[in-house]
Amino acid sequence: MKALPTFDLVLFGGTGDLAMRKLLPALFRRHIAGEISTDSSIIGVARSDLSREEYLGQVETTCRSHLKQDFDEARWAEFAPKIRYQKVDAHADQDFQALAQSLLGRDSYVRVFFLSTAPDLFTAICEGLAKHRLNTPISRVVLEKPLGHDRASANAINESVGAIFTEDRVFRIDHYLGKETVQNLLALRFGNMLFEPLWGRGRIQNVQITVAEDLGVERRAEFYDRTGALRDMVQNHLLQLLCIIAMEPPASSDPAAMRDEKRKVLRALKPLAGRDVLSKTVRGQYKAGASNGEPVVGYLQEKGVPASSTTETFVALKAEIDSWRWAGVPFYLRTGKRMQERLSEIVITFEDVPVAIYERPDDARAWNRLIIQLQPEESINLGVLAKSPGAGMRLKPVDLSLDFSETFPERQLDAYERLLTDVIKGNLMLFMRRDELDAAWQWIDPIREAWEQHDERPKSYTAGSWGPAAASSMISRDGFSWSNEL
Amino acid sequence: MKALPTFDLVLFGGTGDLAMRKLLPALFRRHIAGEISTDSSIIGVARSDLSREEYLGQVETTCRSHLKQDFDEARWAEFAPKIRYQKVDAHADQDFQALAQSLLGRDSYVRVFFLSTAPDLFTAICEGLAKHRLNTPISRVVLEKPLGHDRASANAINESVGAIFTEDRVFRIDHYLGKETVQNLLALRFGNMLFEPLWGRGRIQNVQITVAEDLGVERRAEFYDRTGALRDMVQNHLLQLLCIIAMEPPASSDPAAMRDEKRKVLRALKPLAGRDVLSKTVRGQYKAGASNGEPVVGYLQEKGVPASSTTETFVALKAEIDSWRWAGVPFYLRTGKRMQERLSEIVITFEDVPVAIYERPDDARAWNRLIIQLQPEESINLGVLAKSPGAGMRLKPVDLSLDFSETFPERQLDAYERLLTDVIKGNLMLFMRRDELDAAWQWIDPIREAWEQHDERPKSYTAGSWGPAAASSMISRDGFSWSNEL
Repeated sequence: MKALPTFDLVLFGGTGDLAMRKLLPALFRRHIAGEISTDSSIIGVARSDLSREEYLGQVETTCRSHLKQDFDEARWAEFAPKIRYQKVDAHADQDFQALAQSLLGRDSYVRVFFLSTAPDLFTAICEGLAKHRLNTPISRVVLEKPLGHDRASANAINESVGAIFTEDRVFRIDHYLGKETVQNLLALRFGNMLFEPLWGRGRIQNVQITVAEDLGVERRAEFYDRTGALRDMVQNHLLQLLCIIAMEPPASSDPAAMRDEKRKVLRALKPLAGRDVLSKTVRGQYKAGASNGEPVVGYLQEKGVPASSTTETFVALKAEIDSWRWAGVPFYLRTGKRMQERLSEIVITFEDVPVAIYERPDDARAWNRLIIQLQPEESINLGVLAKSPGAGMRLKPVDLSLDFSETFPERQLDAYERLLTDVIKGNLMLFMRRDELDAAWQWIDPIREAWEQHDERPKSYTAGSWGPAAASSMISRDGFSWSNEL
Repeated sequence: MKALPTFDLVLFGGTGDLAMRKLLPALFRRHIAGEISTDSSIIGVARSDLSREEYLGQVETTCRSHLKQDFDEARWAEFAPKIRYQKVDAHADQDFQALAQSLLGRDSYVRVFFLSTAPDLFTAICEGLAKHRLNTPISRVVLEKPLGHDRASANAINESVGAIFTEDRVFRIDHYLGKETVQNLLALRFGNMLFEPLWGRGRIQNVQITVAEDLGVERRAEFYDRTGALRDMVQNHLLQLLCIIAMEPPASSDPAAMRDEKRKVLRALKPLAGRDVLSKTVRGQYKAGASNGEPVVGYLQEKGVPASSTTETFVALKAEIDSWRWAGVPFYLRTGKRMQERLSEIVITFEDVPVAIYERPDDARAWNRLIIQLQPEESINLGVLAKSPGAGMRLKPVDLSLDFSETFPERQLDAYERLLTDVIKGNLMLFMRRDELDAAWQWIDPIREAWEQHDERPKSYTAGSWGPAAASSMISRDGFSWSNEL
């Protein structure tokens, strides 16, 4: 493992959930792996008045709890001195002054500003950085979602960030793209000729992308109620996964080539607007039910949610791509909270044989399917019909599996480990370019507008189910079923 | 498991190697599986004067030694009474009389004559059966290889057998077709749409069929020296495997539909004749060397082999199929005795990606390959390049495996178990039709004639190697390597 260049990582929102649960444990893991050079530093930034020792204590606690038996005392003793804390109020000039002071003489190192704050602070933070000349030529900014709540607000954010940082220094993160299985889907598609002739209309019957959470809104109720599943999940994670499946082979591994192809997919999405939205989308909102065997309240009873809220906690929709490769192949997307289980997967169902020569099993599982599971475990499975043992010729579904833990016994990188090291290396491949983000919003906005225009209220579904019945009806009108209903 | 119809199996060559090693243990296994009805009988037939008890003793010994811990005393006690013995000299009229006597009153049962004798006895046996009206309307004849030594002699056998048995009652056996993996190759090809778009020119770079034996000529020297590898192996087993790979989807699972497609392949083989034979085939003969660590003699020193023999114990050749699907895709066939290991496999190498987007491993194993292994173990492996774990995007070959023993923990049928039950059921699917056999000889004969005409003598190779160097040169002139040389 080659060490990364020496860096200073300035972590706005440094006491927040993402920093504590994901970013800091990821950095410590990369230190254990020997990638973090001696002179590098990590500066947690937040509004609280914390001493360095207090902050370090929080970081140690979270690292211990996340790394468990991987926590190495000796390596921690090396890692801890790299961690500093700086109180910064985004609107307080003197705080930026202090931050600048703490980075004095370190202009030659890679500098990363990770903005894990509410997006309405992005502008103020960027202006503060500029004013105090913190944005050195080798500094980069990382933006976490939500990147706006519609096309206009996303543009406003990108404008103000773009005024300070050129586009090649802006890293818009979508951690789904950092997952090993998503990477592997790219490797399988573009590292082999096997999949290319299968990849498109006439060969693929439909594609399903499911991101189901078993949790409810938890502590994010206020934010979530302003946002809803369409903006919180579909606009970014689900559309990004759709792009990875649907994109044409890029001309090279150059990030620009890949981002061009993703943008092409987003721009080829058939617009969903007007009454079309009513038949091709389903909004849902969970009511009381059970989660993992425990009774749970409905969305409207969640603390912080207005009793009259019409925010959707579930979306299912049918996307279509107007391209030579994909015309006529439906992409069914669905995501929700308080679903039956935590499951993120892409299911690509291939066309069935035109003539059944051999006796086939009755169950509908008997289809060729490529299943890429992202959560709870990462795996890739290719379902085929093979011969049942014994005399005669009866077919039986079996899986050709790429079992990551068996094939690659070494520990897999967590998505944020990969993405943080990519930022430090300056590799833009797995990050969203501004025009991609814009194209995604351009497709999403009319859906929300149509819901409002037609007063389309969310259909209720029981917490712990697979969403409203209307989601099943939507897909069964096309003659298909959700993969969990097969 | 449904019981088979009641049958009488008359086993000519009933004391021979095939009967003892394969057929009788296979029948006992089918009895243990509950498939053999109470009234069925098995009549061992040979020239020796043996009592029933002596014969039964031999059968019990071989069943015990082959079934090992599967040998079940109680089931043996049920099975033994079904076994009888009849001395028959193929030229002795009174012996057929006695055989007829032993089958008296059993005309309504399925009757199978299994001819596991030298082919020069086939005519006499068939005439004896006809004269004594043993060929009832539901009788079938099974012919074991060698079915002739060239097109003319094969025709003569088929004529004389055909005079007594109509073609739909003639079962020409090739036990390679009874293997579970060969069946599964058919199931994968025609039970799924996945493979169809990959199956042909532009997608497949080359196909290799290897049937390598580690043994020498053993006790078959006299027969083998008259025959050679081309006639003993290529004409039947290797060409049948080639047909299974290359055939078009049959219109149905009807045996006639499948046999039509196999014949089409054989007839589309580009003729190998004249000087072409010299560049596209390699004959070999083993010299002294080592097998499994023990020194072994060369072919010319084997007992029963003339010191001046020019019989080939190895053949490699390049077959081409003049069809829309396969034109330009070489099929490399090779088989030999005293090879480095016992290995039967089909290796289908897919075309490489047109542009390498991601960093590829240096080793040539880094190709998409479908490997169907028949011996020593049966397995199907699809090699793909996947992503190496960790940061960056480096590709690494991994196998998607169909592990039969894991997927199907139940015991697999031995090829002869399957084929014998197919004969009893009257299922012609896995047997060669006369016109197939004829087409195979039609392609094989000119190769041998060209060897003789150009006085092409076998190249020597060391026992325990992968054959003469010329076999490697032949394939490397096309830019490829044998799969074991990658």
